[in-house]
Amino acid sequence: MVQNLVYPKKKQNTVNRYDSRGTYDLHTIHQIINSTPVLHVSFTPSPEDPFPAILPMIGVMGSFEYPSADLNEPLDCYLHGYVSSRIMRLARGSSKGIPVCIAATKVDGLVLSLTPNSHSYNYRSAVLQGYAQVVETDQEKLYAMQKITNKVVQGRWENTRIPPDNVEMTSTTILRVKIETGSGKVRQGGPHDEAKDESRADITDKVWTGVVPVYETFDSPIPSATNKVEPIPEYIQKYVQTTTAENRQIAHNAVKEP
Amino acid sequence: MVQNLVYPKKKQNTVNRYDSRGTYDLHTIHQIINSTPVLHVSFTPSPEDPFPAILPMIGVMGSFEYPSADLNEPLDCYLHGYVSSRIMRLARGSSKGIPVCIAATKVDGLVLSLTPNSHSYNYRSAVLQGYAQVVETDQEKLYAMQKITNKVVQGRWENTRIPPDNVEMTSTTILRVKIETGSGKVRQGGPHDEAKDESRADITDKVWTGVVPVYETFDSPIPSATNKVEPIPEYIQKYVQTTTAENRQIAHNAVKEP
Repeated sequence: MVQNLVYPKKKQNTVNRYDSRGTYDLHTIHQIINSTPVLHVSFTPSPEDPFPAILPMIGVMGSFEYPSADLNEPLDCYLHGYVSSRIMRLARGSSKGIPVCIAATKVDGLVLSLTPNSHSYNYRSAVLQGYAQVVETDQEKLYAMQKITNKVVQGRWENTRIPPDNVEMTSTTILRVKIETGSGKVRQGGPHDEAKDESRADITDKVWTGVVPVYETFDSPIPSATNKVEPIPEYIQKYVQTTTAENRQIAHNAVKEP
Repeated sequence: MVQNLVYPKKKQNTVNRYDSRGTYDLHTIHQIINSTPVLHVSFTPSPEDPFPAILPMIGVMGSFEYPSADLNEPLDCYLHGYVSSRIMRLARGSSKGIPVCIAATKVDGLVLSLTPNSHSYNYRSAVLQGYAQVVETDQEKLYAMQKITNKVVQGRWENTRIPPDNVEMTSTTILRVKIETGSGKVRQGGPHDEAKDESRADITDKVWTGVVPVYETFDSPIPSATNKVEPIPEYIQKYVQTTTAENRQIAHNAVKEP
């Protein structure tokens, strides 16, 4: 098993501010991408348009060539979502693929300190940069669709009506992003105040300091009006409960100093 | 009071796919921005760099000129966060400001349908495009710092050691983004399947369909090792409980068809 692979530090991905929080570790970065339901994907619509664009998309790390690859190995990012005709047209019209930036951020806590300036969040963020191409073969498309569906709920793909029919295959577009570089940032711990404030009783007697843990809760599943399956299948119940428990644990672990 | 103002539909912000979910309503868009703890801000680092960059930042809508403006009125977006020297240098070196794209997405539910292709999320997303300039005056900086701190916890600013001292004022950089255009997307409701699948008992007898509500939970505050204020102040307790309850209510309301 390859261990502790890191993304190369280049000018565009080097973490400068609070650089002790920076990470280039593939496993850490890929894990943040995979555990974030919606990613933000930025691209340049056209040379004439001054503004970059951002699309919310579902995405997951994977390797069609080496499907058994671990999260700490080089992986592509497969994207599916509200793909505007603009990004698809651009990707189809480019042999190398179009340059994109992919971002994911998880907030783990509100960090409340003595002064506004030292307030912070506990969080995990990841940014990837790479070239997005349209996936052409049905085999790779199916590989990505399965991974993306199982990102929404683990085990969901095999518990739905599969395989997708011809119309569904044709109407689905998946982007494969070859990653050029990436970086992450992780902030953990309690508030950090300066001695000039901590030494003043008029401040410390008045200002509460600490952390409010923040995490994403998956609530009890609500059946649709046409649902005929009872009770709620165990793989869904288990996934919902496990995800919430893990999210909560991460938020509480983040309160401790790293 | 100005009502139902909308952002102008331009080429770059018009929602094409699932356009019935699109919104240009200022109040809806500003509300999504204000209720998202971390925003993603995209900019073009340099003409030589092919990739757009994305920074996670804290941001809030506001108007220094008309502080009493409502959310449905034209507002600027004030940003504070891990401002890389790159974006600051770019913003300082530009008279008009640098073009940025700001994105916020809230996931409200996992929408589980009969087929992988019709799976979805309930969500609210907002995208703004505008020109970012560095805030120069102390008065406007203080206005923005107060709004940003009170976004983390309502009422927090006035319950900390304020005002910021000279060193804190000098070391803090705030960007003001003049918004050129914006759009939002809101998906609500249960799964939508096609008649060809809903009419087949072998599928509907096997596949559970429904929604898993998803929301951000603010857990009980955990005092720091040096905290001297007991019990936890009411404005914090109330904010934490109210926010979690409201987030949960939004996720459950989203299960119903709009």
